[in-house]
Parts: sequence; structure tokens; C-alpha cells
Amino acid sequence: MKLVLIRHGESEWNQKNLFTGWTDVELTEKGRKEAKTAGVWLKEKGFDFDVCYTSYLKRAIHTLDLVLSELDRTWLPVIKTWKLNERHYGALQGLNKSETAAKYGEDQVKIWRRSFDVRPPLLTETDERNPAVLSAYRDVDKNELPFGESLKDTIARVVPYYQENILRDMKDGKKVVVAAHGNSLRALVKLLDDLSAEEIVGVNIPTGVPLVYEFDKSWKIKDKYYLGDEATVQSKINSVAAQGKA
Amino acid sequence: MKLVLIRHGESEWNQKNLFTGWTDVELTEKGRKEAKTAGVWLKEKGFDFDVCYTSYLKRAIHTLDLVLSELDRTWLPVIKTWKLNERHYGALQGLNKSETAAKYGEDQVKIWRRSFDVRPPLLTETDERNPAVLSAYRDVDKNELPFGESLKDTIARVVPYYQENILRDMKDGKKVVVAAHGNSLRALVKLLDDLSAEEIVGVNIPTGVPLVYEFDKSWKIKDKYYLGDEATVQSKINSVAAQGKA
Repeated sequence: MKLVLIRHGESEWNQKNLFTGWTDVELTEKGRKEAKTAGVWLKEKGFDFDVCYTSYLKRAIHTLDLVLSELDRTWLPVIKTWKLNERHYGALQGLNKSETAAKYGEDQVKIWRRSFDVRPPLLTETDERNPAVLSAYRDVDKNELPFGESLKDTIARVVPYYQENILRDMKDGKKVVVAAHGNSLRALVKLLDDLSAEEIVGVNIPTGVPLVYEFDKSWKIKDKYYLGDEATVQSKINSVAAQGKA
Repeated sequence: MKLVLIRHGESEWNQKNLFTGWTDVELTEKGRKEAKTAGVWLKEKGFDFDVCYTSYLKRAIHTLDLVLSELDRTWLPVIKTWKLNERHYGALQGLNKSETAAKYGEDQVKIWRRSFDVRPPLLTETDERNPAVLSAYRDVDKNELPFGESLKDTIARVVPYYQENILRDMKDGKKVVVAAHGNSLRALVKLLDDLSAEEIVGVNIPTGVPLVYEFDKSWKIKDKYYLGDEATVQSKINSVAAQGKA
């Protein structure tokens, strides 16, 4: 049994170097190309799926759509869940990194970006970005919705969702692909690779590269690898790591 | 309570004047524009939805995606079902109308296109277009899959699906949009407007125009109308009607 994870490609706000979080921005043309390439790689290696999971955010949903188009699998069922959304970046959403450094100091920005359990400045309840007032979350219990999350908070919503839905589907014999975000995928990688809090903050998942986990019969990880040519994958990992330093 | 039906816009095979049926062809650029315009009209009139239904065919799925993008509702749940597929055109799929007329005679072609219960020449079991050997239908009971359908056959699969799923959702208070095909939507229009077999074959549903049904509290039709400017809608109805005559 295999599980495939794909991080969405470049979005309009990645390009502008803004904190995005739950802001629902579109893929750039480069991001669309990354998604199509991921689909080509999956097709070349003969991958197929029974069910697809993604977030409520269009950059992940459209990444999945482009992958499915390449695979000629547009008809597959797609389950959208806010539980796979990116880490909520609270009041940082919409700020660029230099604005943020000017406002809060560079050391503080580093802590927010790279710590495990420190939350960003939270949204206030009256903020128009409060998920509780956004249409997309109108059917979600308001007490479950965040005003800003640490990576630890993100993990706390992603992991139970994985166990109750994605893992259950796999145990039912279904082949699953997940198209999501840097931090919601980190939550899964921490669980699957059994990493510590220190280890997971150092993991950089490249955009638009299918990450394949193979399980044995007792649901232990047998193998883990990226699809695609090694040079491209390594250069993508380096560029994600460099972003963290910028 | 309102129900919105949308017929997909121009596909690559509409453009080439080929019988399409279950052949999974993409929208043309014109078809994509028609879908976006339908989304703009729905947005202007303040329409919103809770759940979306579409077929297994990408021309309908992508029409829905484009409508949802315009409405900023990409996160809505989308249920894909083969029960909303276009009428299966059997062995006519892939033939153009002049080839078909040359092969079977013009009168026969008219009967296949405009009769209620005459099936097209059926696919053989070994035909590579047999749905039973296509990936998309691998989870469907083979006895349910057609080798070619009359409009009556299409209605026989669409109407129970509507009653057990779409109508049930509406009775649960959910606002529904359906993006589908000329004949699967005819099945719904026949039911909702209580038309006879003779009447429904004369109905021409324009492409990319939202068709709105309003229900009263006892689920009787209170109102029915197309969205969009009248001249555009009428010209689209005329062009669909003319297609039938060509």
C-alpha cells in the first residue's frame, strides 16, 4: 500500500513573499506547471488512486485538479477538508517578511516561522479574516476554528483527521493521494517518520513533488521517496530551505 | 428552495460535430468562457450553494469548477456520479453527422437523435469504448452499465439518482447546483416540468446558462427561469435547436 503526498506549487502570495496561511490565493503559472509536472511523474511511474484528499484552499485544490487531469482521472472522488488547510498564520497573514521584521523584529519572526509550539499574533474576533465569519467555514463548529496556530496546533487537527479518514480508507484497500500545504504535510511526515518536535521544524518539503510512502502489511513504513529527477527535487528542497532563511 | 442546473459549454467534439456521449473530451476555450459567464451571472444574482453534483465527464466537471471559481466557492463539496453522464451514444460515438448519415441514412440519424426510446447501434462487449473496461467505471456493477442508450434509458438512471440524492439534499435544506449534459438535464426537466415523451424531445437546453427552479413548501415548482441576458439565452437556445436540424 502506497500513500502519495503533494505540496501545492507556487501561489500568488508565495511569489510576493507574503505570509499566506488560510488566505485563499490562486496558483501562479509557475505553480500550475509544477502541479502538471507532478502529474506527469506520477503517470510515468504508473500511479493510480481511488480517492483524493485536499484542503479548502484553492491552491491545493487546483494542484490536485491539474495532477488528476494529467493522470486522466478527473472523475475520481475528491474530499475537501479544512483539517488539511495550511497552518493558520493569524495576524501575520498578508504581511511580507520585511514588514513583519520591521514590526516585530527579526528574531521574533524567526521564532514564529521555525518554532514548534509558538503561535503567531492571533486574529481578533472582529477581524474580517476570522475563519468564523468566512463562508468557507460556516458549517464548522466555531470552537474548533483557530485565530492563529503553532505547528503543534496544526498537527493536533491534521493527525486525528488522517487517522480517522485517510488511514481508514487505506485500510479499506483504497489508494490515496493528498494535495495540501507545507505545514499540514509536515504534520503527516512527523507522524509517519516518527520525528521529534526539533526534527520536524528542520524538514523542508519541496513544492509540486510527489512524496511516496510505502507501507508493509502491519502498516509500518517500508520505503519513502520523492518522484521526479533528483536534481530538480534537490534544487526545490534547497529553495524551500533558503526561504526560511530569507 | 432553488435548484440550479447548468449544461456544460462547448467541448472539443461539439466543435468537430461528433457524437460524444460518454467520450471524455475537454471543453474548448469557448466552452470555458461560457462556464465563467454562467458563474458571473450566478454571482450577480447572489446565488450560493451547499453542495454540487456533476458527472464523471471532464467537460461537466470543469464547467462546475469554473462556475465555483467565479463564485469564490472552490471549497464546496462536489459529488461526481456517472448517473449524471450524457446519454450513451453507443457505436455512434466518435462519428460525425455526415459520416453517420452516409452510413445509416439521414432518416435513421434523425430517429436516433430525436426519438424518445430508440437506442443507437450498441457497442459490442469487446469494443474498447465499452464502459465496463474503462477505468472510470471499474467500481460500478457491470450489469448497470450501458452499451448505448435511448433518452428513455438515460431518464431511467438519472431520475432515481435525483430522487435519492439531490432531492434528499434539498429536503435537508441544502442548496444544490448540478452541472451536467443535454440529455441528463433533459431527464430532470421532464420530471420537474412533468412533460410527456413527445414534449421532452422538443426541449432544447442552452449551454452554459443557469436554469433555476424554485420550489414551494410542498415541493411543487413555483417558478422556472434562465439566468443571463435574454438575447444571449435565446440565441443559445436557437443554436442548440439548429444543431438538431443540421
